[in-house]
Amino acid sequence: MSFETCFPIWDRLTPGQQDRIRSGLFSRTVPKGTVLHSGSMDCTGLFLVRSGQLRACILSEGGRQITIYRLFERDICLFSASCILRSIQFDVTIQAERDTALWVIPAETYQSVMAESAPLANYTNELMASRFSDVMWLLEQILWRSLDRRLASFLLEEAAIEGTAELKLTHETIANHLGTHREVITRMLRYFQNEGMVKLARGTVTIRNGAALRVLNE
Amino acid sequence: MSFETCFPIWDRLTPGQQDRIRSGLFSRTVPKGTVLHSGSMDCTGLFLVRSGQLRACILSEGGRQITIYRLFERDICLFSASCILRSIQFDVTIQAERDTALWVIPAETYQSVMAESAPLANYTNELMASRFSDVMWLLEQILWRSLDRRLASFLLEEAAIEGTAELKLTHETIANHLGTHREVITRMLRYFQNEGMVKLARGTVTIRNGAALRVLNE
Repeated sequence: MSFETCFPIWDRLTPGQQDRIRSGLFSRTVPKGTVLHSGSMDCTGLFLVRSGQLRACILSEGGRQITIYRLFERDICLFSASCILRSIQFDVTIQAERDTALWVIPAETYQSVMAESAPLANYTNELMASRFSDVMWLLEQILWRSLDRRLASFLLEEAAIEGTAELKLTHETIANHLGTHREVITRMLRYFQNEGMVKLARGTVTIRNGAALRVLNE
Repeated sequence: MSFETCFPIWDRLTPGQQDRIRSGLFSRTVPKGTVLHSGSMDCTGLFLVRSGQLRACILSEGGRQITIYRLFERDICLFSASCILRSIQFDVTIQAERDTALWVIPAETYQSVMAESAPLANYTNELMASRFSDVMWLLEQILWRSLDRRLASFLLEEAAIEGTAELKLTHETIANHLGTHREVITRMLRYFQNEGMVKLARGTVTIRNGAALRVLNE
């Protein structure tokens, strides 16, 4: 899998623009758990995920965190290069959730090509609109939906991503993802267990009745 | 004040692109309270505020609402033309908070110029990034900050916008803006009053100690 085939609008760039991106480009491989970018760090560049999985989250001063979106193979991470857009005034932390290989396009390279290329600027618009939609969805979840629905939604999504009903997740981890406290999650999970929807064991949540969770999530 | 002087990157468009925008453009004047755009309505076009004030908010099924940002003179409203970006998948309601005059650029006109103009596409990126930052700020307020800080922040902002310490606001209205319930706001406002920070009367909140509110907001 080459960079050229992964980068969505590659053939709409001029040969000169392609050369500039190619000459700036470098590869990086990081183990699971690596923090690739955080608010206090430099403007790293754009990431294109070759394999693995990243998550973008926001952190509170007290260390609480909430996942705002995830990035999979062929996804592009814009906010690791947030300096390219001076209007972006928020800090996102990017962490590898699996061993991950990625290409990095240096911020200044991307910015200089985008300044002259309508296709690249329009593509960047679409990327940002898509992440914006993720965040609006999250905001609506937090504002309007009750925790039981959010938790059901989270468990079903995790099961779909991991391809298993037996999820290796602590209550603390789930609480961090949903922006709440461990005690709140433990109480809700016990309710789910009492209803036969999940089975709890140390460090594991197993989905026993996905249909019931989906009903909750409707 | 002409459209050409208000539109930020007007002189970076080609004469042909300027002609297309000028010929599609129309003016609109709406009284305070008018809903200019909502999720279920058509893709109206981009608004450029000539005078007055708009607010963008999201609504729950139950009718609760929360303000996500405001638009003043010379601001451009992108999400009233959300169809121009296929990745935008959320509904925003745009309402006039004062009698408002605006220019409307039809969505298809803007889209066709943006497709070929790197300056316009880059400008649109900056607009979206700026709104994205507003929403991230809001999300962080909701997730991490306690209501007293959010309410103090809201009152100070209103006073700055209206240019007066005597705010014509019901508790219901404040609750809608902050995405919570009237009872919660009433309780917090009474706490503020007991602390000498505000004075409450029917339909009015008067700021008596802005410095104390600002301390709360730090």
